Amino acid sequence: MSKIGATPRGGLHRLALSDEDREARDLLVKWLKETKLAVTIDEMGNIFGKKPGKGKDLAPVLSGSHLDSQPNGGRFDGTLGVIGTLEVLRTLQENDVATERPVVIVNWTNEEGSRFAPALMGSGVWAGKLNRDWIYGRTDIHERRFEEELKRIRYKAKVPAKKWPVHAYYEYHIEQGPVLERIGKRIGIPKGIVCVHWYDVYLEGTANQVGPSPMEGRNDALCSAAEMILKVNDLPGKMGGDMVATVGEIQNHPNSRNIIPGRVHFTVDIRSWDDALAVRAWEDLETELKAISDRRGCPIKIEETWRIKHTAFNERLIRRILKIADRLEYPSHCMLSGAGHDACYMAQVAPTAMIFVPSIGGRSHVEVEKTKWEDCVAGANVLLHSILESALEK
Amino acid sequence: MSKIGATPRGGLHRLALSDEDREARDLLVKWLKETKLAVTIDEMGNIFGKKPGKGKDLAPVLSGSHLDSQPNGGRFDGTLGVIGTLEVLRTLQENDVATERPVVIVNWTNEEGSRFAPALMGSGVWAGKLNRDWIYGRTDIHERRFEEELKRIRYKAKVPAKKWPVHAYYEYHIEQGPVLERIGKRIGIPKGIVCVHWYDVYLEGTANQVGPSPMEGRNDALCSAAEMILKVNDLPGKMGGDMVATVGEIQNHPNSRNIIPGRVHFTVDIRSWDDALAVRAWEDLETELKAISDRRGCPIKIEETWRIKHTAFNERLIRRILKIADRLEYPSHCMLSGAGHDACYMAQVAPTAMIFVPSIGGRSHVEVEKTKWEDCVAGANVLLHSILESALEK
Repeated sequence: MSKIGATPRGGLHRLALSDEDREARDLLVKWLKETKLAVTIDEMGNIFGKKPGKGKDLAPVLSGSHLDSQPNGGRFDGTLGVIGTLEVLRTLQENDVATERPVVIVNWTNEEGSRFAPALMGSGVWAGKLNRDWIYGRTDIHERRFEEELKRIRYKAKVPAKKWPVHAYYEYHIEQGPVLERIGKRIGIPKGIVCVHWYDVYLEGTANQVGPSPMEGRNDALCSAAEMILKVNDLPGKMGGDMVATVGEIQNHPNSRNIIPGRVHFTVDIRSWDDALAVRAWEDLETELKAISDRRGCPIKIEETWRIKHTAFNERLIRRILKIADRLEYPSHCMLSGAGHDACYMAQVAPTAMIFVPSIGGRSHVEVEKTKWEDCVAGANVLLHSILESALEK
Repeated sequence: MSKIGATPRGGLHRLALSDEDREARDLLVKWLKETKLAVTIDEMGNIFGKKPGKGKDLAPVLSGSHLDSQPNGGRFDGTLGVIGTLEVLRTLQENDVATERPVVIVNWTNEEGSRFAPALMGSGVWAGKLNRDWIYGRTDIHERRFEEELKRIRYKAKVPAKKWPVHAYYEYHIEQGPVLERIGKRIGIPKGIVCVHWYDVYLEGTANQVGPSPMEGRNDALCSAAEMILKVNDLPGKMGGDMVATVGEIQNHPNSRNIIPGRVHFTVDIRSWDDALAVRAWEDLETELKAISDRRGCPIKIEETWRIKHTAFNERLIRRILKIADRLEYPSHCMLSGAGHDACYMAQVAPTAMIFVPSIGGRSHVEVEKTKWEDCVAGANVLLHSILESALEK
C-alpha cells in the first residue's frame, strides 16, 4: 500500500482525493473483495467492508482509520489502522471464525485536512457533526471543490453518509509521540484525546530602514513576537499538568533583512486533557502578551480561532484492551492522545477506543515516520482480540 | 517625477529597469536637455548631464543620487538628490552663473538592489569596484537578466561606465532615520557611513506533531530562534557605542500551526562606525548563539554573508557644508549615515560628502516616507552653495 504515493526519502505523499488517493482506494477495494467483504461506498467516499454476523439485527463492530497522508508525511499514520483491520478480517475469514455481530472495516475520507480543511471530514459528516454540503463546497489552494474532486476520483456514491448503530469503534494508530518508546512499552491505550485550542496573534510594529534607526524608540514586531514565543514555550512548565503549547507558524513583514519588522502574525496551539486548565493558561498568557505588546509599543490583536474540548473514550473498551494486552504479554501504558483522530467524532456517537504502538523517535507527519514491525504485529494482535471480544457479545 | 510609479497610498513603486524606471529616466533626460545640459548615458545606464566650466581641463563637480525605489517605497529616497541637483543646475543656468569647473548631475542605475541584488550597481561599476559583466548577468526573481532589461528600457549605451576624475561628489538625501527630527535640526552632515555586516543563521530542530510531543525533549527551532533574536536585539546595549543590530528576515519550516518548527533561517544585520566593535559584537553574539543551539539541541550553521567597512567622507567637504549651513542659518548636526548610498563607492574614488534633511517620524522605505518642503528647500540651498564653492575652485 505504501508504494502508492511513495516519496524518494521513504515517506508518503497521498493527499485526500488525489490520483494517489484513488489508486490506494482501488487497491483497498480489491483487497476487501478478495477477503469476501461486502463493500459499500457512501456519498462522502467513505469505504466500508462488512463481514456478516450471526445476529442479523445486531449493531456491528467498526474498525479502521484513513489512507490519506500529510504532504511528505509518513507511511504509518492512518494506513496502519486500515491495513491492521484488514489483517484482522482476513484472519477471521481464513479461520472461519463466526461472530455474533458483523465486523466492518472503514477507510474515512480526508482525515488529515491538509489539502481540504478542516480535518476529519468523512467521520465528521457520517457522525452528523459536519454539514455535507458545506464540506462539498470546500476548496483546495487551486480552488478545486471537494465534491468535484470526489467525483473525479470516482468515489462519490449515492449511499447517504449517515450514522448507523455501532456496537464498538476501534481505531489502531501509531502514537505519533515519544512516550511509549521512552518508557519501553509496546501498547498505548489512550483514555481519550486532549482538548485543542487555537489562537492567532497579530502584532503591529513600525517598519523602517534598519541602519538609520537607533535601537531606542524602535517598535520591532519580530522582537515582540520572539518574547511572546518564549512565553508560550514556558507556559506548560508554569501551569503544570499534561499541557503542551506551541507556536508552529509565523509570518513576518516585510521580511527584508534591512527593514525593521513592521507586522508579525503567529499561531498558538494549546492542548491539555484538562479543558479548564487550558483556558486558565490562555488567560494567563494573554495578560503576559499584552504586557509585552505595551512595553514594546507593538499593538496586539488576538483571535480565538478554534476550541474543541477533550474527548473521553469508552471506559469498558479501555479496560478490555488493557486486559488483552496483559494476556498477550505486551507491556502497555494508559495515556492520552495529543493528536486528533476520526475517533474524536466516533466517540460522540458510539463506544470508542484506540490502540497505539510506538513511533520510532516519536516522529510523525514526516518522511522518517516509522514503527518497528514487531510492534505493528503486537498492535494488530490486540486489535484482533478486541474486535473479536466485541463481536462475540450478543 | 513622483507621479511615475505612484502608489495609491502616496508612496512610490519604481523598481530598477522597470517601465516606470524608463519613464522616469525619459522625463529626467527631457528636463536635462531643457536645462541645456550635455547628456551622456553609459553602458550601465547611468545618466549624466553636464554644464561646462571655464577651465576645460578641470575635473568637474559631480552631484546626484538615484531615481529607482524600493517596492512600495517612498517618494523622497534618491529622487530628492536628483531633483535637488537639477534645481541647482537650473538656478545656475537661469542666473548665468559661470564656474571654473564643469558641474555634472548624475542618476545612478539600481541603487536600491531590491529587484537585482546587490545594491549600488551603477556607482559600483563606474568606480571600478563591481565587475560589469557579473552585474550584466544578475537576474531578478523572474530570471530576467540585468543586461536584457537595461536594453529593453533602451538605457544600455556604448560609453564605458568607467570613472573619470571628479573634483568633489555631493549627494543630497533624506536622513531615513529620526535623529534630526528628534533634536530639531534641519541639516544633517554625515561624517561617513557605518559598516554593514550581514550574517545568515540556519537552525535545525526536530519537526513533529505538536499534540503527542511532550515539552521535554523537544528541539523547537523557532524557540531557539526566538531566544537568539532577543540576544541580537540586546547586543547594542551591551556593546555600547553607536551600534544597531537587527533581525529583519525569518523563514520557518514547515510553518504549520500543528507541527513543531523543524528548520529556521534568519538574518542578522549589525552596523557601527567602529568596524572592530562590530566584529567583537559578532564574536560575542556567535558564542551566545552557539550556547543556545547546544542547550536547545538545535544544530546551528552560520554564514558570513557580507562585510563592508565604514566609509569616511571628505573632511574638507564636511567643514564646507557645515559653514554653509551656518551662513544660511539652518541648524545643523554632524552625524553618521546608517544606510548605504552611492556615496559609499564614490568616497573610494573622489572627495565625497552628503547632505541630509529630516525624515518625518524617521520613516523610510515605506509609503508614508516624507520630508517637509521647507526642509527640502533648505537642503537644496546647502547643496547649491556647496556645489558652487567647489565649482569655483581652480
